[in-house]
Amino acid sequence: MSSITIGILGATGYTGVELAKLIKKHSHASIAFVSSQTYAGKKFSDVFPELMNICDLTLISPEEALRQSVDCVFSCLPHATSAALCLPFIEKGIRIIDLSADFRIKGASIYSQWYKTEHPCPQLLAKAVFGLPEHYRSAIKDAQILANPGCYSSSIMLPLIPLFKKFGAKITTVIADSKSGVSGAGRSLKLGSMFVEANENFSAYSIGRSHRHLAEIDQELSLASGKNIEITFSPHLVPMNRGILSTIYIVGAVSAEQCLECVLKAYKNEPFIRVREPNDLPNVRCVAHTNYCDMTFTGGNGQPIIGVCAIDNLLKGASGQALQNMNIMFGFDEQEGLV
Amino acid sequence: MSSITIGILGATGYTGVELAKLIKKHSHASIAFVSSQTYAGKKFSDVFPELMNICDLTLISPEEALRQSVDCVFSCLPHATSAALCLPFIEKGIRIIDLSADFRIKGASIYSQWYKTEHPCPQLLAKAVFGLPEHYRSAIKDAQILANPGCYSSSIMLPLIPLFKKFGAKITTVIADSKSGVSGAGRSLKLGSMFVEANENFSAYSIGRSHRHLAEIDQELSLASGKNIEITFSPHLVPMNRGILSTIYIVGAVSAEQCLECVLKAYKNEPFIRVREPNDLPNVRCVAHTNYCDMTFTGGNGQPIIGVCAIDNLLKGASGQALQNMNIMFGFDEQEGLV
Amino acid sequence: MSSITIGILGATGYTGVELAKLIKKHSHASIAFVSSQTYAGKKFSDVFPELMNICDLTLISPEEALRQSVDCVFSCLPHATSAALCLPFIEKGIRIIDLSADFRIKGASIYSQWYKTEHPCPQLLAKAVFGLPEHYRSAIKDAQILANPGCYSSSIMLPLIPLFKKFGAKITTVIADSKSGVSGAGRSLKLGSMFVEANENFSAYSIGRSHRHLAEIDQELSLASGKNIEITFSPHLVPMNRGILSTIYIVGAVSAEQCLECVLKAYKNEPFIRVREPNDLPNVRCVAHTNYCDMTFTGGNGQPIIGVCAIDNLLKGASGQALQNMNIMFGFDEQEGLV
Amino acid sequence: MSSITIGILGATGYTGVELAKLIKKHSHASIAFVSSQTYAGKKFSDVFPELMNICDLTLISPEEALRQSVDCVFSCLPHATSAALCLPFIEKGIRIIDLSADFRIKGASIYSQWYKTEHPCPQLLAKAVFGLPEHYRSAIKDAQILANPGCYSSSIMLPLIPLFKKFGAKITTVIADSKSGVSGAGRSLKLGSMFVEANENFSAYSIGRSHRHLAEIDQELSLASGKNIEITFSPHLVPMNRGILSTIYIVGAVSAEQCLECVLKAYKNEPFIRVREPNDLPNVRCVAHTNYCDMTFTGGNGQPIIGVCAIDNLLKGASGQALQNMNIMFGFDEQEGLV
Repeated sequence: MSSITIGILGATGYTGVELAKLIKKHSHASIAFVSSQTYAGKKFSDVFPELMNICDLTLISPEEALRQSVDCVFSCLPHATSAALCLPFIEKGIRIIDLSADFRIKGASIYSQWYKTEHPCPQLLAKAVFGLPEHYRSAIKDAQILANPGCYSSSIMLPLIPLFKKFGAKITTVIADSKSGVSGAGRSLKLGSMFVEANENFSAYSIGRSHRHLAEIDQELSLASGKNIEITFSPHLVPMNRGILSTIYIVGAVSAEQCLECVLKAYKNEPFIRVREPNDLPNVRCVAHTNYCDMTFTGGNGQPIIGVCAIDNLLKGASGQALQNMNIMFGFDEQEGLV
Repeated sequence: MSSITIGILGATGYTGVELAKLIKKHSHASIAFVSSQTYAGKKFSDVFPELMNICDLTLISPEEALRQSVDCVFSCLPHATSAALCLPFIEKGIRIIDLSADFRIKGASIYSQWYKTEHPCPQLLAKAVFGLPEHYRSAIKDAQILANPGCYSSSIMLPLIPLFKKFGAKITTVIADSKSGVSGAGRSLKLGSMFVEANENFSAYSIGRSHRHLAEIDQELSLASGKNIEITFSPHLVPMNRGILSTIYIVGAVSAEQCLECVLKAYKNEPFIRVREPNDLPNVRCVAHTNYCDMTFTGGNGQPIIGVCAIDNLLKGASGQALQNMNIMFGFDEQEGLV
Repeated sequence: MSSITIGILGATGYTGVELAKLIKKHSHASIAFVSSQTYAGKKFSDVFPELMNICDLTLISPEEALRQSVDCVFSCLPHATSAALCLPFIEKGIRIIDLSADFRIKGASIYSQWYKTEHPCPQLLAKAVFGLPEHYRSAIKDAQILANPGCYSSSIMLPLIPLFKKFGAKITTVIADSKSGVSGAGRSLKLGSMFVEANENFSAYSIGRSHRHLAEIDQELSLASGKNIEITFSPHLVPMNRGILSTIYIVGAVSAEQCLECVLKAYKNEPFIRVREPNDLPNVRCVAHTNYCDMTFTGGNGQPIIGVCAIDNLLKGASGQALQNMNIMFGFDEQEGLV
Repeated sequence: MSSITIGILGATGYTGVELAKLIKKHSHASIAFVSSQTYAGKKFSDVFPELMNICDLTLISPEEALRQSVDCVFSCLPHATSAALCLPFIEKGIRIIDLSADFRIKGASIYSQWYKTEHPCPQLLAKAVFGLPEHYRSAIKDAQILANPGCYSSSIMLPLIPLFKKFGAKITTVIADSKSGVSGAGRSLKLGSMFVEANENFSAYSIGRSHRHLAEIDQELSLASGKNIEITFSPHLVPMNRGILSTIYIVGAVSAEQCLECVLKAYKNEPFIRVREPNDLPNVRCVAHTNYCDMTFTGGNGQPIIGVCAIDNLLKGASGQALQNMNIMFGFDEQEGLV
């Protein structure tokens, strides 16, 4: 099987480093360039000493990146910047996998409303494929622009999309109470991400209807159900490096058993979804450092149904899912480099 | 002001040690004895080296404890054992503060149903006072048997009781998604409490309608609202030593502003309740190592209301609240030893 | 007993907050002002929500602080800035307790060599008292300028000073391998202090002869021994909020038993020093959130002697020791507010 | 290339699970059986839910294991038990890789002295090969009995063996101050391994000349230097899951530069040793979840030389090194399954 070359834009965040490690283990892909505005000119392994002997490439500037020829570009840049820097690659016909939110939202005005900025290339939104392999696999195969889903979103959409497809009309209220490790906040310096602030602490933030991932969650659940869906979403910060656990409350005329049966059927051939028994609740430890998404359903009987879903925010919630998408796009074994 | 002597039954768990440290700082109380089945004969500070020079008493057996004369006995024993060992003290007229669940539930049959054992002295249940100072202060003053509330329960009842008193008829669904530090699981050896199992992990357990604290939560909310209340309760384990944060979803014909106003009014003179603005969400760090209970309300507007409440599980959720109760029972300043 | 008023310069770091909490518990001292360059105009409890109802004073600017009249000023400012801002208070005859390094080093040139800056007021160095209560108590009583020792330094000097006083001539080599919680790095934004960088990590830094605390350690050990001492010092970062454990290797013609006997004698009346048996090794948990310094000695018999010493870096290593010094300076019970 | 089958004795500890995950990624080895005294009859993935879809084999009893035919047996059993259970496999000519200490020590009497038990098969000690690939690669190729080194030992011997080979006569004193994550203590229930005891704590234990790993460290350093070596060794417990950092002090007539040059030369072709510059100190984060051993040297100039070495205790310190040894024994690429 032939091999491909890839580049990583904005490589010096946590998702970029994770991607570099994954590609290193991949039998058919190699890194041609890594770029960084801040660290251009330094070796990747000098910025991240853990990469010594794993990826010792010199980081190049975004401008220099534009002159590189590769089969696939991953963007680990922040939103708005990401689409703008991906654009020239797209115009050259290079396939891009964007880990930012820029190509996730179908409507430019909804994007602007949530992200408080104009979309840099709204004309391309229709061309982008939402990169949830379990639900868009055939479109992903041919995608040129792949919008990799958000971490919280993945942990909420994966258990809910099959339910909304099947029972959409019967579900009246959804509350997602999500808990994330601190790497979800990225590597930029913020007081709330300092060790002493986050350690021995547990806190809620952006609760209700304010977190940006709601844009894509509402969109995908509405598409699944065929009607307009708005959920309540409460993110929380957990003193751990990685992982997300979402506890999801569903009010409606459906039972926990029906929910469980529904996802068992929907995901029975999926290599990265593990549906568990209700007495074997998913937890972060079981999925950390893997691309698995674990889920189950319990509760009900006059009370809300409770879904529990766990992923590694940096893998199934970001770089792992991105690689899974790359494998599909380029015809590799979907699990290559991920198990 | 005169001083009192106290004894601690089952002193060698986390709540016992915490209590010993608190009493050490109290101006009007001193420890006369500490007992332990397992460690009788050893110095308390040999079992817990942190207590060196703080409490160097020799632990006595429960049998020997019965021969001690004190003004007040705290029981940090497990349920069922606790009531049985408190009984002789009660019969001697000694005031007891029981940190176990034994005197919290009004009905012996409900107790049996949740705790899977016969109550050792059901005849005393009617005499016990539920030790939530903010709601039962006047009864606490005269209590001989004080039932100190559970940790999760305190973090759920304190924000909800005022609401149920005022808006009980309008509230249709309550979901409490609670997150606790590992000390909540006690000091006995359990695989799930091992460092490597709990660290870098986040997990749900006993979710839905199975955790025992539901017995007292349902009881107190039903009393407050005047009708039968059953909530959904999902406890989770957080990789931190202490603290609980409960995120509480309320569905009903009431607004977040009304909820906030309601608790502000109910707690305006309470020294240990801090009602915060919705943009100043409570977190565990702010209450850790204190007896404070922080809370606020937000959300609503077509979505569930979200209440957020944080306490230190070992203080306002256990030993701190126990000392607050002792202060009320013996006429000391309610904040003595706690600020 | 009469009461005093105090002010805190640079109150918005970890030592300032800790000090504010300690003063709140003190029976004879109250806070008259808290200052901050960055946060002037905001309430202290808005910057640190944990201080709500504990210290709700509005932070004032350093300039406004100069116009305040208090009995004692604590400076939690960084070195160089600290002495410069303390100077006007000193000139007005106000007693100051400086938690920075500015008044710790006897020689201005040694200060410059280690701190890479000119000392702002070298003429005052001779007047400053080194604030290690166990060794300078009588001088502290009358001090106007109190130089509070460094955190690492305290954990190394307290076990070593008695040994150097008694066996100085016999000790040939000292290695201090110290491990500190992350709060020791302060609250300013640094990549190495980010949660994801420090958590699940353990690292050495500034090892050998490069950490600034060596200036005061060498000085005090040299004074104790009567000859020039230079030790090897290796600081490490531990993924915990607070606490320091120093493992100290001593090569020389002396036994572990002699060392133990020596400190037992030196510290037999000290309220905050707990000398432990060699089979009861000090650890961070036992001293965290206290002003205790725990120590013991073992090893020897043809191998180096091993001293182990643990303190809370924010208490006995900073704010707790500062308060202990204040108690001595103003004639209060030395343990007031600290137990 | 042909494939081999392997079995794991005592698979339900941390090293067994780690090994199962590694083998799953290996292209030429598959697991034929996993055994456990305690959990026989249960699925491996029921005991460790993280193994769902990774290793769902049913655990068999040690007795049943003896009837299995495989190419290689890994033993993750405790010492004494391990050799006894390996013996029948050895007699059948099956190659074994023992992660316990049983085959590490050349002399049965030294083994008895440190491990307080008679060796179950002293006659086999001479046949065992010490599994440090960087120093015994050619013997490992033909080994039937492979003694996988201890975790602490690996982090101390790897930096020191080249030095003792070259400068043995010049080194007078060695102190290894080592810090390990909690998984090093294994998965059995112990109070010191409980989350609340180990978290926010840092402690020393078995310091001086008491930890059992000294037996193999002394042995290997003595072999390297040609004279009898006894070092001082101080293990410490760090609140993190995995990783060891050893800070090693060397007193002798040799410089840090010479030490650095020596290991650079010794390890220049080693795939898993990364010698770093003195200003790029190794840390645990850089080696966690990898088979790398990072090291450097600094200090000296009249003070002790300081070596710093970091490994993942479960990988290069246990299961990763075991797999590396298997790769050598069976002629696979030494890095297969490990990068």
